[in-house]
Amino acid sequence: MIIDIHGHYTTAPPQLQAFRDAQLARLADPALPVPRLAPISDDAVRESVENHQLKVLRERGGDLMVFSPKASGMEHHVTDRATASAWAEAGNDLVHRAASLFPEYFAAVCQLPQTANSPLDDVIAELRRCVEQLGFVGANLNPDPSGGHWTSPPLTDPYWFPLYEVLAELDVPAMVHVSTSCNPAFHTLGAHYLNADTSVFMQLAQDGGALFDRFPGLRFVLPHGGGAVPYHWGRYRGLAMRMGLPDPTVRLTDNVFFDTCVYHQPGVDLLTKVVPTGNVLFASEMLGAVRGVDPDTGVAWDDTKQYVDGAGLSQQQLQQVYEGNARRVYPRLDAKLTAEGR
Amino acid sequence: MIIDIHGHYTTAPPQLQAFRDAQLARLADPALPVPRLAPISDDAVRESVENHQLKVLRERGGDLMVFSPKASGMEHHVTDRATASAWAEAGNDLVHRAASLFPEYFAAVCQLPQTANSPLDDVIAELRRCVEQLGFVGANLNPDPSGGHWTSPPLTDPYWFPLYEVLAELDVPAMVHVSTSCNPAFHTLGAHYLNADTSVFMQLAQDGGALFDRFPGLRFVLPHGGGAVPYHWGRYRGLAMRMGLPDPTVRLTDNVFFDTCVYHQPGVDLLTKVVPTGNVLFASEMLGAVRGVDPDTGVAWDDTKQYVDGAGLSQQQLQQVYEGNARRVYPRLDAKLTAEGR
Repeated sequence: MIIDIHGHYTTAPPQLQAFRDAQLARLADPALPVPRLAPISDDAVRESVENHQLKVLRERGGDLMVFSPKASGMEHHVTDRATASAWAEAGNDLVHRAASLFPEYFAAVCQLPQTANSPLDDVIAELRRCVEQLGFVGANLNPDPSGGHWTSPPLTDPYWFPLYEVLAELDVPAMVHVSTSCNPAFHTLGAHYLNADTSVFMQLAQDGGALFDRFPGLRFVLPHGGGAVPYHWGRYRGLAMRMGLPDPTVRLTDNVFFDTCVYHQPGVDLLTKVVPTGNVLFASEMLGAVRGVDPDTGVAWDDTKQYVDGAGLSQQQLQQVYEGNARRVYPRLDAKLTAEGR
Repeated sequence: MIIDIHGHYTTAPPQLQAFRDAQLARLADPALPVPRLAPISDDAVRESVENHQLKVLRERGGDLMVFSPKASGMEHHVTDRATASAWAEAGNDLVHRAASLFPEYFAAVCQLPQTANSPLDDVIAELRRCVEQLGFVGANLNPDPSGGHWTSPPLTDPYWFPLYEVLAELDVPAMVHVSTSCNPAFHTLGAHYLNADTSVFMQLAQDGGALFDRFPGLRFVLPHGGGAVPYHWGRYRGLAMRMGLPDPTVRLTDNVFFDTCVYHQPGVDLLTKVVPTGNVLFASEMLGAVRGVDPDTGVAWDDTKQYVDGAGLSQQQLQQVYEGNARRVYPRLDAKLTAEGR
């Protein structure tokens, strides 16, 4: 089967954004009433995905999408913790409803109610709620909740350890995914996302694997093909050697994975050539940052299955990239599929 | 001939760092005397490059290196403008001495005395001094003088226009190159450098070419193979199309260039495959970030000539990458070489 591990609910019914707008309005004017999410019918949830993610997934031959709230909408830069919690809950609940309406097509991943440098107890509580009560199979972790100002410590800092303990206990991976950039130097989709992937890989490389000595079961997925990393694979190997650190392209293989959200054939060719096949997970982030069709090839930019199919992998490698790796990195997804006889 | 457009004076005699240390000490304690650079003999300058950059350049078959002060040492995050000016002058003067002692092997590029969000008159004065009086052929421009906090406006902002007027008037390109990161989230060599290249390309893409409508003669060189950009070539094309902007991979070709500082064969293969050959300039940044030899291949990480030679380019394309493009992008270098009958 073909599992797309990177999809966002970019097409949520408008009540969700109206709720967000009301949250932000109340932060500006605390005299306003506490906002509530207006009712959304099952039909509205169905319709919001049926003609979008689900339609495209089926058309392209995919079987299941790992589905989470819209990444740029997480907006962790809004510093009020109660607002962050209510917003994450609303988004996660809606993802849960979509996944429950189409259980054969979606597995849910949660947004965490992060705010920069706050204690992580709200974050952990929401993670537990989503995984233990709602059956989510992973989480999105933002290494820069400030939104482009990068005021948080590296992901190897003990600040993050309480969260890692719970991720390891629950045996769910975290996709390292930033949200909207509030810094005009960084375009959200064309710079901030890629910079985050690059920066976090180097944080982990600098750490020499110590984080994963402490948390052997912790697993990070780097989206967008790992930012600049595979293109600079030699740079990372050479830097580590010069710094007397283990080769990160070897040391991190049990814990760090790359998705295939790279939107042209030569990019996916490079990714699948340099990154070990066991560390590449199929993904499209479709109906995400880049929509439309490449006029030169007639292929939709985010139809990454075409690039993966064209990358010259063996059948065994394709099975790993399309299914095997995802089931290994997301064991709760594997358990769900196994229980369904898939 | 083979021109390496990206070399730094990473091996300067120790008097230079002693001067810098004294500058920083005086900023901490203004009662200290105004520091002066201790005398450095011509022999010391000769020796500092003869057995390093020059030796390696010759061994690898290179003919000329475009040479500038050490990038991580620019330290534009030190906010005192007088200190920045004295530091840039000292570094540029020393580069000038090395270039004057080996005029057949070096062409000089200057460090600018930037500090975040200051007026640019010191920067422009030093640029003019270096180009008009010392014969420099280009400048290094730091898009983030804060050193990893990214407090400056994008390079498309009118803040930078006074500098661009002078770059265009003098007909010298700017290599977009950050310096040391003071942000623990960004490793200088493994994240900050690449993020800067990526971010600036997107700043220019977002601008849709308006900057180059205003300054048609302005030319930027993106180092380190353009960060994440060629690997995500499709992403940039698709994003621009979605945003109703011109395709940046076409629109920016007269003004934006990529060097070949990518330290493995698959990376250089990708670069030369997706970026038009007229926009790729040979460079190694050797004796820079990544030193030593890849144990898997026996090739020095930064011996990028091996990768370029192995990328399957035609003789005509190799001539462009090794020489022709550099002479076009750096017309003052071309004039110097032409005057020498080269």
